[in-house]
Amino acid sequence: MSRFWSSAVHDLEPYVAGEQPKIPGLVKLNTNENPFGPSPRVLEAIAAASDDRLRLYPDPSSSRLRETLARNFGLEAEQVFVGNGSDEVLAFTFAALLKHDKPLLCSDITYSFYKTYARLFEITVDEVPVDDAMRIHIGDYDRPCGAIILANPNAPTGIALPLSEIEALVASHPDQVVVIDEAYVDFGAETAASLIPRYENLLVVHTFSKSRSLAGLRIGFALGQRSLIEALERMKDSFNSYPLDTLAQAAATAAVEDKAWFKQTRDQIIANRDMVTGALKARGFEVLPSSANFVFTRHPAHQGADLARGLRERAVLIRHFAKPRISDFLRVTIGTAEECHQFLTAIDQII
Amino acid sequence: MSRFWSSAVHDLEPYVAGEQPKIPGLVKLNTNENPFGPSPRVLEAIAAASDDRLRLYPDPSSSRLRETLARNFGLEAEQVFVGNGSDEVLAFTFAALLKHDKPLLCSDITYSFYKTYARLFEITVDEVPVDDAMRIHIGDYDRPCGAIILANPNAPTGIALPLSEIEALVASHPDQVVVIDEAYVDFGAETAASLIPRYENLLVVHTFSKSRSLAGLRIGFALGQRSLIEALERMKDSFNSYPLDTLAQAAATAAVEDKAWFKQTRDQIIANRDMVTGALKARGFEVLPSSANFVFTRHPAHQGADLARGLRERAVLIRHFAKPRISDFLRVTIGTAEECHQFLTAIDQII
Repeated sequence: MSRFWSSAVHDLEPYVAGEQPKIPGLVKLNTNENPFGPSPRVLEAIAAASDDRLRLYPDPSSSRLRETLARNFGLEAEQVFVGNGSDEVLAFTFAALLKHDKPLLCSDITYSFYKTYARLFEITVDEVPVDDAMRIHIGDYDRPCGAIILANPNAPTGIALPLSEIEALVASHPDQVVVIDEAYVDFGAETAASLIPRYENLLVVHTFSKSRSLAGLRIGFALGQRSLIEALERMKDSFNSYPLDTLAQAAATAAVEDKAWFKQTRDQIIANRDMVTGALKARGFEVLPSSANFVFTRHPAHQGADLARGLRERAVLIRHFAKPRISDFLRVTIGTAEECHQFLTAIDQII
Repeated sequence: MSRFWSSAVHDLEPYVAGEQPKIPGLVKLNTNENPFGPSPRVLEAIAAASDDRLRLYPDPSSSRLRETLARNFGLEAEQVFVGNGSDEVLAFTFAALLKHDKPLLCSDITYSFYKTYARLFEITVDEVPVDDAMRIHIGDYDRPCGAIILANPNAPTGIALPLSEIEALVASHPDQVVVIDEAYVDFGAETAASLIPRYENLLVVHTFSKSRSLAGLRIGFALGQRSLIEALERMKDSFNSYPLDTLAQAAATAAVEDKAWFKQTRDQIIANRDMVTGALKARGFEVLPSSANFVFTRHPAHQGADLARGLRERAVLIRHFAKPRISDFLRVTIGTAEECHQFLTAIDQII
């Protein structure tokens, strides 16, 4: 608290990200990073752009990256907005598209940054509960609202809705923006990007931090019809003209172009997820059906906090949320096969 | 305009940055970039950090960079805030520290992004005119206000205030935050960072885009006492947990450490500025006394728009502002000696 602060600062509830400790030998399964490095073509692109030209400002509109993404999704470049991580893209989205007289709808169990953004931009939120199986029911969103945001697959549950239900939600709210946050979509759900030509109220948000192995470079993007993208551009150009640096633009473009690397690493993570899911079930865990690069799991005889502590003592870091409804769950990132085995070995020692 | 936009989007007046055209052979003197590349140690640091670890999130608190900057300025790491370019740092500063019941004071002739931020965050601005010689008078800021922001050296004039006057301004407003934007300070002015231990209301903002030759990597920082920095951190953690990517953190740290490169390139730019200033004066131009890496200049017999057009036709890009009081001036970035000569040759052809 300080007399120098703008009054709004006092009311903020900053998001708390998963830890990024630098402990040697740590099995780090707490922030849903990709266990595999980025494509070799990404590293080549960074090396090729690392020279005297770094003295120059980057392309403020990230044209080449946006064109590459547009081609990848069958859209036009002006239907693509890029930002400094999907967190920045989401921040602009909340400010530019989700603040209305009526409340914003989101799930009670979802990415907790949404409520932080809502607080920052003074947006009223109406939380729609998931059912006891942690499932979202689209019919529950038939209530007065100014806009809707859903993560699909949802976090931290990993549960995905089929594209048909996403379309039903978008179609039934023609006067509200519906944001689908697809941070984890590549690991087993279907993107709603194909719906964009038909729905002017749909915005789809993606990140390079998960399936593209580039959490270290902070790149996210949004796809939507022109009027939605224009709102994000107006916000960006009132905030920071050059949000995406030269190396990030080059790296991201190369990452999209290397489709083989993307598929190979993604498929390996899915295979590891199936293995971990089976192994946890064999040990008596409940595992929610995951379409993401993590599983959300609990054991009927062990409290979540106890399991998290026991794993930490064994140098295995997972994410535990001390929050209503989910405090007995662990969110476990799917790592390499070896990391998955280290996690399971530690679990065996605890239970 | 769209029914999907938050109402605030309609009222934005986005900042218009200088062009970033990709024209071969262009003499690009329009966005105050450094004509020299970054330190070779910067490129080595980027190469050393470009590997599989890019799959991991960056250090969210940029600890090593903040410690390096703190050492450089004789401060503590918790007195340093870093962001995605000084534009992002300024955006957080406006939101967190400059929004009060009373108006924000700034110069009528200054970095035009300030008014864009004020519009974005709904901050009332009271513009204090510079005198006819484009000079800021500290006494003019003795008026009711909620906060003050000054660029020193000022942009686009390049004119600097001595540290004694900056201190007088800070000391005479003990209950208001005073932000000194020192984007260009290394080219001939004195930083106010040395005042920070004595003034809890002082925030100093810097960029790596000018004297550090890293416009392409988007790094800026703020220095101040703990309570001001904490406000910025609260804002950042409500907006984007990881604003500075892994490569930018590594590059910026190396840039601060290579003091010899910094001094050598800075001194060369100052020498080129003196040469350009003399050459322009010899051609009848008025040149404001610059402490920056650009000069602000006008000719008594030629309109600014005409000169800008003539230069552009000769593939020399400078910045012209079609705004009251300064529409006859050109802002000319100081380039390499060769670029300076190309600019002067083009001027000779025009006048």
